[in-house]
Amino acid sequence: MKAVRLLAYNELPKVQETAEPTITSPTDVIVRIGGAGLCRTDLHIIEGQWVEKSGVTLPYTLGHENAGWIEAIGSAVSNVAVGDTVIVHPLATCGYCRACRAGDDMHCINSVFPGISVDGGMAAFLKTNARAVVKLDPILSPKDIAALADAGLTAYHAVKKAAALLYPGTKVVVIGAGGLGHIGVQCLKALTPAEIIVVDKSQAALDLTKNWGANYTVVADGKHVDTVKDITNGQGAEAVIDFVGEQGAEMDAVQMLRRAGSHFIIGYGGRLNVPTIDIISTEINFIGNLVGSYNDLAELMTLTAQGKVKLHTQVYPLDAAIDAIHDLESGKLRGRGILVP
Amino acid sequence: MKAVRLLAYNELPKVQETAEPTITSPTDVIVRIGGAGLCRTDLHIIEGQWVEKSGVTLPYTLGHENAGWIEAIGSAVSNVAVGDTVIVHPLATCGYCRACRAGDDMHCINSVFPGISVDGGMAAFLKTNARAVVKLDPILSPKDIAALADAGLTAYHAVKKAAALLYPGTKVVVIGAGGLGHIGVQCLKALTPAEIIVVDKSQAALDLTKNWGANYTVVADGKHVDTVKDITNGQGAEAVIDFVGEQGAEMDAVQMLRRAGSHFIIGYGGRLNVPTIDIISTEINFIGNLVGSYNDLAELMTLTAQGKVKLHTQVYPLDAAIDAIHDLESGKLRGRGILVP
Amino acid sequence: MKAVRLLAYNELPKVQETAEPTITSPTDVIVRIGGAGLCRTDLHIIEGQWVEKSGVTLPYTLGHENAGWIEAIGSAVSNVAVGDTVIVHPLATCGYCRACRAGDDMHCINSVFPGISVDGGMAAFLKTNARAVVKLDPILSPKDIAALADAGLTAYHAVKKAAALLYPGTKVVVIGAGGLGHIGVQCLKALTPAEIIVVDKSQAALDLTKNWGANYTVVADGKHVDTVKDITNGQGAEAVIDFVGEQGAEMDAVQMLRRAGSHFIIGYGGRLNVPTIDIISTEINFIGNLVGSYNDLAELMTLTAQGKVKLHTQVYPLDAAIDAIHDLESGKLRGRGILVP
Amino acid sequence: MKAVRLLAYNELPKVQETAEPTITSPTDVIVRIGGAGLCRTDLHIIEGQWVEKSGVTLPYTLGHENAGWIEAIGSAVSNVAVGDTVIVHPLATCGYCRACRAGDDMHCINSVFPGISVDGGMAAFLKTNARAVVKLDPILSPKDIAALADAGLTAYHAVKKAAALLYPGTKVVVIGAGGLGHIGVQCLKALTPAEIIVVDKSQAALDLTKNWGANYTVVADGKHVDTVKDITNGQGAEAVIDFVGEQGAEMDAVQMLRRAGSHFIIGYGGRLNVPTIDIISTEINFIGNLVGSYNDLAELMTLTAQGKVKLHTQVYPLDAAIDAIHDLESGKLRGRGILVP
Repeated sequence: MKAVRLLAYNELPKVQETAEPTITSPTDVIVRIGGAGLCRTDLHIIEGQWVEKSGVTLPYTLGHENAGWIEAIGSAVSNVAVGDTVIVHPLATCGYCRACRAGDDMHCINSVFPGISVDGGMAAFLKTNARAVVKLDPILSPKDIAALADAGLTAYHAVKKAAALLYPGTKVVVIGAGGLGHIGVQCLKALTPAEIIVVDKSQAALDLTKNWGANYTVVADGKHVDTVKDITNGQGAEAVIDFVGEQGAEMDAVQMLRRAGSHFIIGYGGRLNVPTIDIISTEINFIGNLVGSYNDLAELMTLTAQGKVKLHTQVYPLDAAIDAIHDLESGKLRGRGILVP
Repeated sequence: MKAVRLLAYNELPKVQETAEPTITSPTDVIVRIGGAGLCRTDLHIIEGQWVEKSGVTLPYTLGHENAGWIEAIGSAVSNVAVGDTVIVHPLATCGYCRACRAGDDMHCINSVFPGISVDGGMAAFLKTNARAVVKLDPILSPKDIAALADAGLTAYHAVKKAAALLYPGTKVVVIGAGGLGHIGVQCLKALTPAEIIVVDKSQAALDLTKNWGANYTVVADGKHVDTVKDITNGQGAEAVIDFVGEQGAEMDAVQMLRRAGSHFIIGYGGRLNVPTIDIISTEINFIGNLVGSYNDLAELMTLTAQGKVKLHTQVYPLDAAIDAIHDLESGKLRGRGILVP
Repeated sequence: MKAVRLLAYNELPKVQETAEPTITSPTDVIVRIGGAGLCRTDLHIIEGQWVEKSGVTLPYTLGHENAGWIEAIGSAVSNVAVGDTVIVHPLATCGYCRACRAGDDMHCINSVFPGISVDGGMAAFLKTNARAVVKLDPILSPKDIAALADAGLTAYHAVKKAAALLYPGTKVVVIGAGGLGHIGVQCLKALTPAEIIVVDKSQAALDLTKNWGANYTVVADGKHVDTVKDITNGQGAEAVIDFVGEQGAEMDAVQMLRRAGSHFIIGYGGRLNVPTIDIISTEINFIGNLVGSYNDLAELMTLTAQGKVKLHTQVYPLDAAIDAIHDLESGKLRGRGILVP
Repeated sequence: MKAVRLLAYNELPKVQETAEPTITSPTDVIVRIGGAGLCRTDLHIIEGQWVEKSGVTLPYTLGHENAGWIEAIGSAVSNVAVGDTVIVHPLATCGYCRACRAGDDMHCINSVFPGISVDGGMAAFLKTNARAVVKLDPILSPKDIAALADAGLTAYHAVKKAAALLYPGTKVVVIGAGGLGHIGVQCLKALTPAEIIVVDKSQAALDLTKNWGANYTVVADGKHVDTVKDITNGQGAEAVIDFVGEQGAEMDAVQMLRRAGSHFIIGYGGRLNVPTIDIISTEINFIGNLVGSYNDLAELMTLTAQGKVKLHTQVYPLDAAIDAIHDLESGKLRGRGILVP
């Protein structure tokens, strides 16, 4: 089958022939890919940022945001059947460790992460396991919802944690009006009564968020921290959700926080660098966020089915993967890029 | 009356005569001081670290860790009477703002902080308000428990937040076996079933913690991060409570954390400086901590009355305040220094 | 001044002249009443259901759902000024006990409950204290929002507790489509992504709830438990919020619950009567609800200001209080009855 | 193999030969029983109380409290190996439903409950699945800890929920000083700083609890509700944990509750019967409790390994199962009865 293969770090991947995956364990499932999302993390992988953390051996197939149809199942699989439409949770987890049993399956100690640590879904077929697949209504088209598997899940997971802080009268800042910010604003609208302030460099991107539910939009023009302070009566916001995490955004968040506020870190690339006296004198918090649980993904699919979360996507044939990467890097890609085999 | 007055930053305070406080509002109370704790924050104030945050005008009286007896009360005060033994919550709060009403009175938007932002308790008398005083059993001696008002409260508050993460089988690291660490270990023992690992540079200080309930002690000898990793089976601890926050300790904590773990920041002076990719790839958290609520202080006094929290103190006459400061700076002061007028 | 005075149990109250309240404590406030809501609890008081619990001495003035303007303040009051528009929290609390300091001011151990335990607001003036008044935008008309002070607050408080259980994909049953149910459905819509099932005897009342956000309406026709079971795929709902609590409704709820579900009890009059084996074999919960905190009321006023909660009211002059009571008893009163002095 | 078989309701079971279980699914495990606990629920099953809820077909083997050694495993099992010492979680769960993935595996929608709904462990061998077995240190003797699998787990689970309410200064009432009460008191001591009041009819049983950590003991002599009120300064306790739930105990609890308190229901047989006005006027809660999760059981085994929970048992050969039942019914059985094949 054809797949998007990373052959060396700091070089573009290639679309090549590679062997189809096969069932080797009783709980394996093979998914025929209907759509595989392209994510900024794919760029970070190519740049080598994940070398140590993933431990993957090159070459391997990219693609950690996948949806499709069940093609084959192992002998112990009963939760899905061949032909079912599914979205694929990014992690194939064990179901036996404490984290899996506690609802924190993203911290499974026996997990693999297809597209990060083993072959991913930018291909005709993907191998994962039975615990990773969420069965969907067959009328859904995998290419329309694939990007929810990781980008959407990550945004939902962070919003769900923030929601516990957001009662009527609170304000939340969303930094970044791209793919994740898009979904984050919609999830905030669905889960909380908070007023939403979106910050981004692009006026056009901000304008779109007005339709998704943003109450205030702020252009990141260097005065944006002051603007957020003004909107929050000089107090700052109860929560800041940072989908950028680099290029200075990671340092803006702390200045936008109210006393006892929380900064949710999703985007990455930069450094969090704060004097400890500033952390203790205001009792602020920094909350890491990594994808989300299987149940989180199922909840997000419910919001999608209810029409509360919509996704802008731009479809490319799998063969055009390199074009998609170029478009993402150059900022030409509007919405989420989806590769279709 | 005599008081320990800060006349200029970066100079030692002086014990001088100053006017006694008087009742000016119906909710004022005047406390005759029985003991005022000396805290590392007093050194930080002298060094000017709090200039901007406190907004105080020099000269003023230090002392934010106070206990004594009610000397006088305003016309609207009914929760205490003249002669009552009290410990003084560090903040005089309003009781009307959202934070006061939500149990977060340390974030009261109308508070004053005697000893930080107005005259404190290193003096014969202290003025605060009726909401700040916790009535105690008259058999208690103020000089024995004064240090619980801030050092103890801060340790208790952080431990109480950490306790929510600490179920049987978890491990918690306490960085710093000084005054706060002392109380922190005892509070952890009282509130949680977690195993406690204490890290400090001093073997003598570590030895003491064995009596308070420490399960493991680790000398901070440069290999202590690896030692903590070994004790935690290579996984790291569910929580790290950092009572130091400077001189490198603030950077050790993050390396001792388990996936999804939380770093509680209490000590300060250094900087938290972490790549955002390390925060998101393990989903760790950084939790600021600022004193604690009035209810926290009342709970800590209950633990003390039950014999679960004990305090080592070293008493100095108020006139010897400068000696006490020298002893604290030079590391000669064992336990908490208490000034008695 | 004129007031609605209860002279004897099981007799209708009378509109009579009585003395105006006066400031007697530094924290007292006197509110000139703009509107006082009439509540089913007023009927229960007249019937004597609250004799023991309230401990009130007859005669006294009814009215525990009040809004108006500040008429006079005690010497220690600074959070409101004469002329301010306010809604009145039902309890005048102390601000010093643990409950007040923990955000549970409805459990203040020193509170009075005007209209229940002392003179209430069906009168020209009401005496309460400074901690009880929520300052409002002066463009708001007290008669339009008075009913939120108790009915609204009670519904909001219960919904806020239920909201913690209600993630995307869950269903919640609201029993009772009257005044509280009206507000409850709107609050559920504002705070949660759950699907809402409303049960009531009246098809007309149910039809109205469709506009407030109900997803399903079920006529209480004897088969309604089965209907709810069908809507919830035979599983029952994650939460049932019972605004009726009598005439059999209190026994329906338990049958509509999913395993591990929670029954929120707000309405009263009947008995909860369940075999303990049914409680433990499904691990269900019964959650009592009593008004709400001051912060809850402030949050509800925010939702109202944001247009998310609207109220149907029917205004009566204070002199026509007895007509209003007759209309409430006979079911002729649509929406909430408001007495205007 | 020999097994304790229930042939008909309201008749004593018989020790009979029956077929050994065999591996039929890739995730099955067979446990060679080292000890099977005898529980009051076994008496309730014999009396027919569980007929409808269990849906079991007679005859079948009793025994839902089991520990032993792995005898055989299915082809997909990798978390345990033949020969491992294990304690058996009462439910064999699927690992795929929302409850299993959310840490609420006791509400798994695909579970079986050996000893309740299928053949149990009062036999030489028990069949369950890989998700049900907790691997133990091989030095542990199954017969010593078997009773923790259900009685212990149930007590721990309820205590863990109650612990969230129990800060320093609170009081908790434990009703019942038998097997579950025994473990409950020790778990309360390990997890909370609350003072513990134990109520039981037997002075001898109460005396024992003093060693486990009880602060107060109260003989259930008809005046015990008043005694508990006195101990709690007339306020009642923040939590009541009722391990009896019948013969009147289920009606005592509500009278011992403080405002906003919670009654945890574990014992069963009686009815909860409370006027709804009493529930809402004090805002009290009733919390059902059903066994506990796998993680709960692992945590309890940690407490046991740490020496914080100890168990009094009385061992009977499997052949003497009927004697054990007689001893339990007649009150002659001290501690927990354990059948050893």
